Amino acid sequence: MASPELDALTQALARLPGLGPRSARRAVLHLVKKREGTLEPLLKALEAVSEKLSTCSICGNVDTADPCGICTDPRRDDSAICVVEEVADLWALDRSKLFSGRFHVLGGRLSALDGVRPEDLSIDQLVARIEKGGVDEVVLAMNATLEGQTTAHYLAEQLETFPLRITQLAHGLPVGGELDYLDEGTLAQALRARRPVA
Amino acid sequence: MASPELDALTQALARLPGLGPRSARRAVLHLVKKREGTLEPLLKALEAVSEKLSTCSICGNVDTADPCGICTDPRRDDSAICVVEEVADLWALDRSKLFSGRFHVLGGRLSALDGVRPEDLSIDQLVARIEKGGVDEVVLAMNATLEGQTTAHYLAEQLETFPLRITQLAHGLPVGGELDYLDEGTLAQALRARRPVA
Repeated sequence: MASPELDALTQALARLPGLGPRSARRAVLHLVKKREGTLEPLLKALEAVSEKLSTCSICGNVDTADPCGICTDPRRDDSAICVVEEVADLWALDRSKLFSGRFHVLGGRLSALDGVRPEDLSIDQLVARIEKGGVDEVVLAMNATLEGQTTAHYLAEQLETFPLRITQLAHGLPVGGELDYLDEGTLAQALRARRPVA
Repeated sequence: MASPELDALTQALARLPGLGPRSARRAVLHLVKKREGTLEPLLKALEAVSEKLSTCSICGNVDTADPCGICTDPRRDDSAICVVEEVADLWALDRSKLFSGRFHVLGGRLSALDGVRPEDLSIDQLVARIEKGGVDEVVLAMNATLEGQTTAHYLAEQLETFPLRITQLAHGLPVGGELDYLDEGTLAQALRARRPVA
Protein backbone atom coordinates (compact mmCIF):
# COMPACT_ATOMS: atom_id res chain seq x y z
CA MET A 1 0.00 0.00 0.00
CA ALA A 2 2.85 2.28 -0.91
CA SER A 3 0.74 4.77 -2.86
CA PRO A 4 0.35 8.18 -1.18
CA GLU A 5 -3.18 8.54 -2.58
CA LEU A 6 -4.37 5.34 -0.90
CA ASP A 7 -2.61 6.33 2.30
CA ALA A 8 -4.32 9.73 2.25
CA LEU A 9 -7.70 8.09 1.72
CA THR A 10 -7.06 5.69 4.60
CA GLN A 11 -6.15 8.57 6.87
CA ALA A 12 -9.18 10.62 5.84
CA LEU A 13 -11.48 7.67 6.55
CA ALA A 14 -9.73 6.85 9.84
CA ARG A 15 -10.70 10.30 11.11
CA LEU A 16 -14.40 9.39 10.98
CA PRO A 17 -15.94 8.34 14.29
CA GLY A 18 -16.30 4.59 14.48
CA LEU A 19 -13.41 3.91 12.11
CA GLY A 20 -9.81 3.42 13.24
CA PRO A 21 -6.69 2.95 11.11
CA ARG A 22 -7.36 -0.77 10.78
CA SER A 23 -10.99 -0.57 9.75
CA ALA A 24 -10.22 2.41 7.51
CA ARG A 25 -7.74 0.19 5.65
CA ARG A 26 -10.39 -2.48 5.26
CA ALA A 27 -12.81 0.16 4.02
CA VAL A 28 -10.27 1.40 1.45
CA LEU A 29 -9.70 -2.15 0.26
CA HIS A 30 -13.43 -2.59 -0.07
CA LEU A 31 -13.68 0.67 -2.01
CA VAL A 32 -10.92 -0.22 -4.46
CA LYS A 33 -12.13 -3.79 -4.96
CA LYS A 34 -15.76 -2.88 -5.59
CA ARG A 35 -15.08 0.36 -7.33
CA GLU A 36 -18.25 0.77 -9.37
CA GLY A 37 -20.56 -0.21 -6.54
CA THR A 38 -18.98 1.69 -3.67
CA LEU A 39 -16.26 4.17 -4.55
CA GLU A 40 -18.12 6.03 -7.27
CA PRO A 41 -21.43 6.36 -5.34
CA LEU A 42 -19.55 7.54 -2.24
CA LEU A 43 -17.62 10.07 -4.30
CA LYS A 44 -20.80 11.37 -5.93
CA ALA A 45 -22.63 11.58 -2.61
CA LEU A 46 -19.74 13.46 -1.01
CA GLU A 47 -19.54 15.87 -3.93
CA ALA A 48 -23.27 16.57 -3.78
CA VAL A 49 -23.16 17.22 -0.04
CA SER A 50 -19.98 19.27 -0.24
CA GLU A 51 -21.49 21.47 -2.93
CA LYS A 52 -24.81 22.12 -1.28
CA LEU A 53 -24.12 21.85 2.43
CA SER A 54 -25.23 24.79 4.50
CA THR A 55 -26.40 25.74 7.96
CA CYS A 56 -30.05 26.75 8.16
CA SER A 57 -30.25 30.46 8.88
CA ILE A 58 -33.48 29.98 10.82
CA CYS A 59 -32.89 26.99 13.10
CA GLY A 60 -29.19 26.12 12.77
CA ASN A 61 -29.83 22.65 11.31
CA VAL A 62 -27.31 21.40 8.77
CA ASP A 63 -28.90 20.57 5.46
CA THR A 64 -28.39 20.85 1.72
CA ALA A 65 -30.87 23.70 1.54
CA ASP A 66 -31.24 26.98 3.44
CA PRO A 67 -33.79 27.26 5.04
CA CYS A 68 -33.61 23.56 5.87
CA GLY A 69 -36.16 20.87 5.04
CA ILE A 70 -37.68 21.04 8.51
CA CYS A 71 -38.12 24.82 8.52
CA THR A 72 -39.76 24.79 5.08
CA ASP A 73 -41.98 21.73 5.66
CA PRO A 74 -45.56 23.10 5.48
CA ARG A 75 -46.96 20.12 7.40
CA ARG A 76 -45.07 21.09 10.52
CA ASP A 77 -46.57 23.02 13.38
CA ASP A 78 -45.23 26.58 13.72
CA SER A 79 -46.54 26.99 17.25
CA ALA A 80 -43.99 24.67 18.91
CA ILE A 81 -40.21 24.99 18.91
CA CYS A 82 -38.00 22.23 20.27
CA VAL A 83 -34.64 23.64 21.43
CA VAL A 84 -31.66 21.24 21.25
CA GLU A 85 -27.95 21.57 21.90
CA GLU A 86 -26.56 20.10 18.70
CA VAL A 87 -27.60 19.10 15.18
CA ALA A 88 -27.16 15.46 16.21
CA ASP A 89 -29.85 15.92 18.85
CA LEU A 90 -32.19 17.44 16.27
CA TRP A 91 -31.67 14.46 13.95
CA ALA A 92 -32.20 11.99 16.79
CA LEU A 93 -35.49 13.62 17.82
CA ASP A 94 -36.58 13.99 14.21
CA ARG A 95 -36.00 10.27 13.60
CA SER A 96 -38.40 9.47 16.42
CA LYS A 97 -41.09 11.29 14.35
CA LEU A 98 -42.89 12.20 17.58
CA PHE A 99 -42.39 15.96 17.43
CA SER A 100 -44.11 17.74 14.59
CA GLY A 101 -43.07 21.32 15.41
CA ARG A 102 -39.97 23.26 14.43
CA PHE A 103 -36.51 23.01 15.92
CA HIS A 104 -33.82 25.37 17.17
CA VAL A 105 -30.17 24.34 17.47
CA LEU A 106 -28.24 26.24 20.16
CA GLY A 107 -24.87 25.09 18.89
CA GLY A 108 -23.66 23.85 22.27
CA ARG A 109 -24.34 24.13 25.97
CA LEU A 110 -23.36 26.62 28.65
CA SER A 111 -20.12 25.49 30.21
CA ALA A 112 -17.89 27.33 32.63
CA LEU A 113 -15.22 24.69 32.06
CA ASP A 114 -15.14 25.09 28.27
CA GLY A 115 -15.76 28.83 28.47
CA VAL A 116 -19.09 28.70 26.63
CA ARG A 117 -21.19 31.73 27.58
CA PRO A 118 -24.79 32.59 26.63
CA GLU A 119 -23.59 34.86 23.80
CA ASP A 120 -21.79 31.89 22.22
CA LEU A 121 -25.09 30.09 21.73
CA SER A 122 -27.86 31.07 19.32
CA ILE A 123 -30.11 32.26 22.14
CA ASP A 124 -30.72 35.70 20.61
CA GLN A 125 -31.95 34.05 17.42
CA LEU A 126 -34.33 31.90 19.46
CA VAL A 127 -35.68 34.94 21.29
CA ALA A 128 -36.11 36.74 17.95
CA ARG A 129 -38.07 33.76 16.57
CA ILE A 130 -40.35 33.85 19.61
CA GLU A 131 -40.77 37.62 19.45
CA LYS A 132 -42.13 37.27 15.93
CA GLY A 133 -45.13 35.61 17.53
CA GLY A 134 -47.14 32.48 16.83
CA VAL A 135 -45.16 30.27 19.22
CA ASP A 136 -47.15 28.66 22.04
CA GLU A 137 -44.70 26.10 23.36
CA VAL A 138 -40.94 25.82 23.70
CA VAL A 139 -39.63 22.33 24.49
CA LEU A 140 -36.22 22.44 26.17
CA ALA A 141 -34.66 19.20 24.95
CA MET A 142 -31.20 19.54 26.45
CA ASN A 143 -29.12 16.53 27.39
CA ALA A 144 -29.67 15.18 30.90
CA THR A 145 -26.20 16.31 31.92
CA LEU A 146 -25.22 18.98 34.40
CA GLU A 147 -24.34 21.41 31.61
CA GLY A 148 -27.42 20.55 29.58
CA GLN A 149 -29.67 21.15 32.57
CA THR A 150 -27.88 24.39 33.44
CA THR A 151 -28.52 25.55 29.88
CA ALA A 152 -32.19 24.57 30.10
CA HIS A 153 -32.53 26.44 33.37
CA TYR A 154 -30.90 29.56 31.91
CA LEU A 155 -33.16 29.41 28.84
CA ALA A 156 -36.27 28.98 30.97
CA GLU A 157 -35.32 32.17 32.84
CA GLN A 158 -34.70 34.08 29.63
CA LEU A 159 -38.06 33.06 28.19
CA GLU A 160 -40.06 33.67 31.37
CA THR A 161 -41.46 36.97 30.16
CA PHE A 162 -43.08 35.50 27.03
CA PRO A 163 -46.62 34.10 27.16
CA LEU A 164 -45.37 30.58 26.47
CA ARG A 165 -45.65 27.04 27.72
CA ILE A 166 -42.06 26.04 28.50
CA THR A 167 -41.62 22.30 28.85
CA GLN A 168 -38.71 19.91 29.13
CA LEU A 169 -38.20 16.24 28.36
CA ALA A 170 -39.23 13.88 31.15
CA HIS A 171 -36.49 12.34 33.23
CA GLY A 172 -36.78 8.87 34.69
CA LEU A 173 -36.19 5.24 33.92
CA PRO A 174 -35.12 4.56 30.31
CA VAL A 175 -37.06 1.84 28.50
CA GLY A 176 -35.64 -1.52 29.54
CA GLY A 177 -33.83 0.04 32.50
CA GLU A 178 -33.33 -2.25 35.48
CA LEU A 179 -33.29 -0.51 38.84
CA ASP A 180 -30.32 -2.55 39.98
CA TYR A 181 -28.17 -1.20 37.13
CA LEU A 182 -29.29 2.43 37.05
CA ASP A 183 -27.31 5.20 38.70
CA GLU A 184 -28.62 6.94 41.78
CA GLY A 185 -29.22 10.20 39.94
CA THR A 186 -31.66 8.52 37.54
CA LEU A 187 -33.39 6.70 40.38
CA ALA A 188 -33.71 9.92 42.36
CA GLN A 189 -35.21 11.71 39.32
CA ALA A 190 -37.62 8.84 38.67
CA LEU A 191 -38.71 8.76 42.31
CA ARG A 192 -39.07 12.52 42.56
CA ALA A 193 -41.16 12.66 39.38
CA ARG A 194 -43.30 9.63 40.30
CA ARG A 195 -46.85 9.70 39.02
CA PRO A 196 -50.13 8.16 40.25
CA VAL A 197 -50.84 4.86 38.52
CA ALA A 198 -53.54 5.51 35.92
CA MET B 1 -32.19 14.66 8.01
CA ALA B 2 -34.73 15.04 5.28
CA SER B 3 -32.25 15.98 2.57
CA PRO B 4 -31.79 13.32 -0.12
CA GLU B 5 -28.10 14.25 -0.51
CA LEU B 6 -27.35 13.55 3.15
CA ASP B 7 -29.38 10.34 2.98
CA ALA B 8 -27.41 9.20 -0.07
CA LEU B 9 -24.13 9.94 1.70
CA THR B 10 -25.26 8.01 4.77
CA GLN B 11 -26.20 5.04 2.61
CA ALA B 12 -22.91 5.13 0.70
CA LEU B 13 -20.95 5.18 3.96
CA ALA B 14 -23.11 2.47 5.52
CA ARG B 15 -22.00 0.12 2.74
CA LEU B 16 -18.40 0.22 3.99
CA PRO B 17 -17.33 -2.71 6.13
CA GLY B 18 -17.28 -1.73 9.80
CA LEU B 19 -19.96 0.94 9.42
CA GLY B 20 -23.68 0.30 9.81
CA PRO B 21 -26.58 2.72 9.27
CA ARG B 22 -26.17 4.13 12.78
CA SER B 23 -22.43 4.75 12.67
CA ALA B 24 -22.72 6.01 9.10
CA ARG B 25 -25.13 8.65 10.36
CA ARG B 26 -22.70 9.65 13.08
CA ALA B 27 -19.95 9.82 10.46
CA VAL B 28 -22.07 12.06 8.22
CA LEU B 29 -22.78 14.34 11.16
CA HIS B 30 -19.08 14.50 11.89
CA LEU B 31 -18.37 15.31 8.24
CA VAL B 32 -20.91 18.10 8.06
CA LYS B 33 -19.92 19.59 11.40
CA LYS B 34 -16.20 19.63 10.75
CA ARG B 35 -16.43 20.32 7.09
CA GLU B 36 -13.01 21.87 6.41
CA GLY B 37 -11.12 19.29 8.46
CA THR B 38 -12.85 16.12 7.36
CA LEU B 39 -15.26 16.41 4.45
CA GLU B 40 -12.96 18.27 2.05
CA PRO B 41 -9.88 16.06 2.69
CA LEU B 42 -11.97 12.91 2.30
CA LEU B 43 -13.47 14.23 -0.92
CA LYS B 44 -10.05 15.12 -2.31
CA ALA B 45 -8.57 11.76 -1.29
CA LEU B 46 -11.45 9.89 -2.92
CA GLU B 47 -11.14 11.92 -6.11
CA ALA B 48 -7.41 11.27 -6.32
CA VAL B 49 -7.87 7.53 -5.80
CA SER B 50 -10.83 7.33 -8.15
CA GLU B 51 -8.87 9.08 -10.89
CA LYS B 52 -5.70 7.05 -10.66
CA LEU B 53 -6.78 3.68 -9.37
CA SER B 54 -5.63 0.71 -11.40
CA THR B 55 -4.77 -2.96 -11.13
CA CYS B 56 -1.08 -3.74 -11.60
CA SER B 57 -0.61 -5.60 -14.86
CA ILE B 58 2.33 -7.52 -13.42
CA CYS B 59 1.23 -8.71 -9.98
CA GLY B 60 -2.47 -7.85 -9.70
CA ASN B 61 -2.01 -5.43 -6.80
CA VAL B 62 -4.34 -2.43 -6.67
CA ASP B 63 -2.47 0.84 -6.70
CA THR B 64 -2.55 4.33 -8.15
CA ALA B 65 0.18 3.42 -10.62
CA ASP B 66 0.63 0.56 -13.10
CA PRO B 67 3.02 -1.24 -12.58
CA CYS B 68 2.42 -0.85 -8.84
CA GLY B 69 4.78 0.58 -6.27
CA ILE B 70 5.95 -2.85 -5.18
CA CYS B 71 6.71 -4.10 -8.71
CA THR B 72 8.71 -0.95 -9.52
CA ASP B 73 10.57 -0.70 -6.20
CA PRO B 74 14.25 -1.23 -7.13
CA ARG B 75 15.17 -2.22 -3.57
CA ARG B 76 13.04 -5.34 -3.75
CA ASP B 77 14.39 -8.78 -4.53
CA ASP B 78 13.35 -10.11 -7.95
CA SER B 79 14.29 -13.68 -7.10
CA ALA B 80 11.40 -14.34 -4.71
CA ILE B 81 7.67 -14.15 -5.45
CA CYS B 82 5.09 -14.41 -2.71
CA VAL B 83 1.76 -15.69 -4.07
CA VAL B 84 -1.38 -14.56 -2.23
CA GLU B 85 -5.09 -14.98 -2.78
CA GLU B 86 -6.25 -11.39 -2.53
CA VAL B 87 -4.93 -7.83 -2.53
CA ALA B 88 -5.83 -7.62 1.18
CA ASP B 89 -3.39 -10.48 1.86
CA LEU B 90 -0.65 -8.69 -0.07
CA TRP B 91 -1.19 -5.54 1.97
CA ALA B 92 -1.18 -7.50 5.23
CA LEU B 93 2.11 -9.22 4.38
CA ASP B 94 3.61 -6.01 3.08
CA ARG B 95 2.76 -4.22 6.32
CA SER B 96 4.78 -6.81 8.24
CA LYS B 97 7.82 -5.61 6.22
CA LEU B 98 9.34 -9.10 6.55
CA PHE B 99 9.20 -10.10 2.89
CA SER B 100 11.35 -8.07 0.54
CA GLY B 101 10.56 -9.90 -2.71
CA ARG B 102 7.77 -9.35 -5.23
CA PHE B 103 4.15 -10.41 -4.93
CA HIS B 104 1.57 -12.11 -7.11
CA VAL B 105 -2.16 -11.82 -6.48
CA LEU B 106 -4.18 -14.82 -7.68
CA GLY B 107 -7.49 -13.01 -7.40
CA GLY B 108 -9.16 -15.73 -5.35
CA ARG B 109 -8.87 -19.37 -4.41
CA LEU B 110 -9.87 -22.62 -6.09
CA SER B 111 -13.35 -23.51 -4.94
CA ALA B 112 -15.64 -26.22 -6.22
CA LEU B 113 -18.47 -24.67 -4.23
CA ASP B 114 -18.11 -21.19 -5.75
CA GLY B 115 -17.19 -22.60 -9.18
CA VAL B 116 -13.70 -21.05 -9.20
CA ARG B 117 -11.43 -23.06 -11.51
CA PRO B 118 -7.70 -22.69 -12.16
CA GLU B 119 -8.35 -20.63 -15.30
CA ASP B 120 -10.27 -18.08 -13.20
CA LEU B 121 -7.11 -17.27 -11.23
CA SER B 122 -4.01 -15.50 -12.56
CA ILE B 123 -1.99 -18.73 -12.56
CA ASP B 124 -0.92 -18.40 -16.21
CA GLN B 125 0.49 -14.95 -15.48
CA LEU B 126 2.42 -16.39 -12.53
CA VAL B 127 3.87 -19.18 -14.69
CA ALA B 128 4.81 -16.60 -17.34
CA ARG B 129 6.62 -14.52 -14.73
CA ILE B 130 8.57 -17.58 -13.60
CA GLU B 131 9.35 -18.64 -17.18
CA LYS B 132 11.04 -15.29 -17.76
CA GLY B 133 13.69 -16.52 -15.32
CA GLY B 134 15.43 -15.01 -12.32
CA VAL B 135 13.01 -16.45 -9.76
CA ASP B 136 14.54 -18.78 -7.16
CA GLU B 137 11.75 -19.05 -4.64
CA VAL B 138 7.97 -19.01 -4.69
CA VAL B 139 6.27 -18.56 -1.32
CA LEU B 140 2.74 -19.93 -1.31
CA ALA B 141 1.01 -17.65 1.18
CA MET B 142 -2.54 -18.90 0.88
CA ASN B 143 -4.99 -18.70 3.77
CA ALA B 144 -4.94 -21.65 6.17
CA THR B 145 -8.38 -22.71 4.98
CA LEU B 146 -9.36 -25.83 3.09
CA GLU B 147 -9.72 -23.88 -0.16
CA GLY B 148 -6.52 -21.92 0.42
CA GLN B 149 -4.56 -25.09 1.02
CA THR B 150 -6.13 -26.80 -1.99
CA THR B 151 -5.01 -23.84 -4.08
CA ALA B 152 -1.49 -24.01 -2.62
CA HIS B 153 -1.33 -27.72 -3.38
CA TYR B 154 -2.49 -27.19 -6.96
CA LEU B 155 0.04 -24.40 -7.49
CA ALA B 156 2.86 -26.53 -6.05
CA GLU B 157 2.02 -29.21 -8.62
CA GLN B 158 1.92 -26.73 -11.48
CA LEU B 159 5.30 -25.30 -10.55
CA GLU B 160 6.97 -28.66 -9.92
CA THR B 161 8.80 -28.66 -13.24
CA PHE B 162 10.61 -25.36 -12.58
CA PRO B 163 13.97 -25.28 -10.80
CA LEU B 164 12.48 -23.43 -7.82
CA ARG B 165 12.30 -23.56 -4.08
CA ILE B 166 8.57 -23.70 -3.32
CA THR B 167 7.76 -22.83 0.28
CA GLN B 168 4.63 -22.12 2.27
CA LEU B 169 3.84 -20.21 5.44
CA ALA B 170 4.34 -22.18 8.65
CA HIS B 171 1.23 -23.45 10.39
CA GLY B 172 1.02 -23.76 14.14
CA LEU B 173 0.15 -21.82 17.25
CA PRO B 174 -0.57 -18.13 16.66
CA VAL B 175 1.28 -15.70 18.92
CA GLY B 176 -0.57 -15.50 22.21
CA GLY B 177 -2.52 -18.66 21.43
CA GLU B 178 -3.58 -20.72 24.43
CA LEU B 179 -3.81 -24.46 23.83
CA ASP B 180 -7.06 -24.63 25.74
CA TYR B 181 -8.77 -22.25 23.31
CA LEU B 182 -7.31 -23.39 20.00
CA ASP B 183 -9.16 -25.67 17.65
CA GLU B 184 -8.04 -29.24 17.11
CA GLY B 185 -6.93 -28.56 13.57
CA THR B 186 -4.40 -25.95 14.71
CA LEU B 187 -3.18 -28.18 17.52
CA ALA B 188 -2.78 -31.10 15.14
CA GLN B 189 -0.78 -28.91 12.70
CA ALA B 190 1.39 -27.56 15.51
CA LEU B 191 2.06 -31.04 16.82
CA ARG B 192 2.77 -32.53 13.41
CA ALA B 193 5.19 -29.70 12.55
CA ARG B 194 6.91 -29.76 15.95
CA ARG B 195 10.57 -28.87 15.89
CA PRO B 196 13.52 -29.75 18.10
CA VAL B 197 14.08 -27.11 20.77
CA ALA B 198 17.12 -25.07 19.69
